Amino acid sequence: MTTRRDFIRTSALLTAGAGILPFNACALPKAKDRLGVALVGLGYYSTDVLAPALQETKKCYLAGIVTGTPEKAVRWQKQYKLPDKNIYSYQNFDQIANNPDIDVVYVVLPPSMHAEYTIRAAKAGKHVWCEKPMAPSVADCQAMIKACRDNKVTLSIGYRTQHDPNVQEIIRLRRQNELGKIRLVTASAGYYEQRADNWKQKKAMGGGAMNDMGVYALQAARYVTGEEPILVTAQQFTTRPAIYTEVDETTLFQLQFPSGAVANCATSFGMDMNQLQATCANGWLRMEPFQAYGGIKGESSKGVIDFKIGNQQALQMDNDATAIMQKKALLVPGEEGLRDIRVVEAIHEAARTGKAVKLSA
Amino acid sequence: MTTRRDFIRTSALLTAGAGILPFNACALPKAKDRLGVALVGLGYYSTDVLAPALQETKKCYLAGIVTGTPEKAVRWQKQYKLPDKNIYSYQNFDQIANNPDIDVVYVVLPPSMHAEYTIRAAKAGKHVWCEKPMAPSVADCQAMIKACRDNKVTLSIGYRTQHDPNVQEIIRLRRQNELGKIRLVTASAGYYEQRADNWKQKKAMGGGAMNDMGVYALQAARYVTGEEPILVTAQQFTTRPAIYTEVDETTLFQLQFPSGAVANCATSFGMDMNQLQATCANGWLRMEPFQAYGGIKGESSKGVIDFKIGNQQALQMDNDATAIMQKKALLVPGEEGLRDIRVVEAIHEAARTGKAVKLSA
Repeated sequence: MTTRRDFIRTSALLTAGAGILPFNACALPKAKDRLGVALVGLGYYSTDVLAPALQETKKCYLAGIVTGTPEKAVRWQKQYKLPDKNIYSYQNFDQIANNPDIDVVYVVLPPSMHAEYTIRAAKAGKHVWCEKPMAPSVADCQAMIKACRDNKVTLSIGYRTQHDPNVQEIIRLRRQNELGKIRLVTASAGYYEQRADNWKQKKAMGGGAMNDMGVYALQAARYVTGEEPILVTAQQFTTRPAIYTEVDETTLFQLQFPSGAVANCATSFGMDMNQLQATCANGWLRMEPFQAYGGIKGESSKGVIDFKIGNQQALQMDNDATAIMQKKALLVPGEEGLRDIRVVEAIHEAARTGKAVKLSA
Repeated sequence: MTTRRDFIRTSALLTAGAGILPFNACALPKAKDRLGVALVGLGYYSTDVLAPALQETKKCYLAGIVTGTPEKAVRWQKQYKLPDKNIYSYQNFDQIANNPDIDVVYVVLPPSMHAEYTIRAAKAGKHVWCEKPMAPSVADCQAMIKACRDNKVTLSIGYRTQHDPNVQEIIRLRRQNELGKIRLVTASAGYYEQRADNWKQKKAMGGGAMNDMGVYALQAARYVTGEEPILVTAQQFTTRPAIYTEVDETTLFQLQFPSGAVANCATSFGMDMNQLQATCANGWLRMEPFQAYGGIKGESSKGVIDFKIGNQQALQMDNDATAIMQKKALLVPGEEGLRDIRVVEAIHEAARTGKAVKLSA
């Protein structure tokens, strides 16, 4: 395993020209067949999920890291044989502009920092992959999209499930109208969050169940219907008021779509749930789990949905890298992340005011 | 089949003494081993469901009918060999007081007529079985309960599913705390109602999806949690505004319970759905269908739930007849129907005002 990975990594590094010839020593940059990715923020998701996934990607590789913790830098350098010059702190991050090894900056920080690091990465001329939720506010999302556009770099949101063929099958069923008019979507996404002092409990860091897990249910309601909601209501609850003082532990939200379809959704840091159902005029659909890292599966009135995939995040990153290299449309561009955050803002407003919030279609 | 049914019916009639000896010819009324039931309102449910079920009951039998349509009276008399004296119109209904063949009046009319006929039956000294929803208003329910209490007769609500051992298993799991704290109940009950000019579309008759189908989802949220909701929100929608001018085609409603459990429910006349799920601290539960006439089944984290039963309505009526004969507690007394209608009223208010409605626990 180590041997194979070492080989892949070494060949990737060679292919990308890293550490052999300085990039700017070439008269013209050579087309790469793998993009170098720098992970920004080395928490659980980078450490346990994305870095291992990057060992399985074919179109990109782990080229660098950005971290505020020197001990983490040492550990990652050793584990992934990263050259010194590809290790950044938050202070010297902007110098990444001069590093040809880094093609993509993957922002894996708490949501409140997504805008800042996306914009800084864009200004450094790097493509950006940004974890979900895109940002805590529509204004942030718009600024991120603008910065990437202005700097002629792409912006992908890390909606891994939309790269999963099982989710794509749901979208195909709707696009081809195989189940008839979508009438009701029920989606519940949550887990029991044991941590009590994480960014997930902090409003200023973009925490809360709706922002973190709710976007899965919201996305599902949107991709199952293929529409944008026009009316939003929401209710928030907590069973742990001592911990959930600033953000929601549980949010229920309801959406009405232009076609008349409605969605009944739940998200929570207080319980495990991972279910998607749709009631349609000529059929039905259910997925469980619908937003897991692997094993997404389900059934519709048209048959079983159970495509086997390898590493979901590797698939996502390879798809995004391929789109960048081939200059093709991204599967989940910033605009798609923004569409969710627009509704998330409406959900928070509806919960806060206790009133239905209208949205333009 | 006909032979067996004829035998059962004949023996039932003989056993109950109907048509052989006038009841009041005896010095003291003999204890019956079957109660005579008069169906009030001979629509679909009486015709296609309850009357056939009464051919399979062991503790009660079809003894009479109350109808405003003389042709129906002729047809039913012929089919079920009912004596002339056990046929009533709405005008002479109160004379049922003098008919010892009739022990129970089963009110199967549109909801707006439940209170009137329950109260008239009670005043006639007959036990009352009343279809769900109990009535369109809390005030009606209270008057019905009072009339039955004042006249020393019992009042059962036709919540057939609560007699189903599959539903009883759900209640047992909660009572014995096998799944841990109930956190979220998701219940969806609906069907595509093709009729456009039925009582179900008329407000004055107690129609609407919430009243008719919504009580199943509401009941489920209540029996899964074993609690009464303290906060209610609701949203109503229609996809057929030309038909649903007075009542709701689709209602979404959310409940918060004292323990912190929440429920996310949907009901509709615009789509087929019949699903119940619960997310619990130490397990889960799902039932589909959860409110069908037969075949209720599901699974929990403790195992499959799939008890086979015969005719569900026969089971319900036999249970209620047995409770009456043995003077035992009814499984679903009027007070239980009232508990639902109290919440239904709050749901309608919440939908109308767009505001959360508080209820006392």
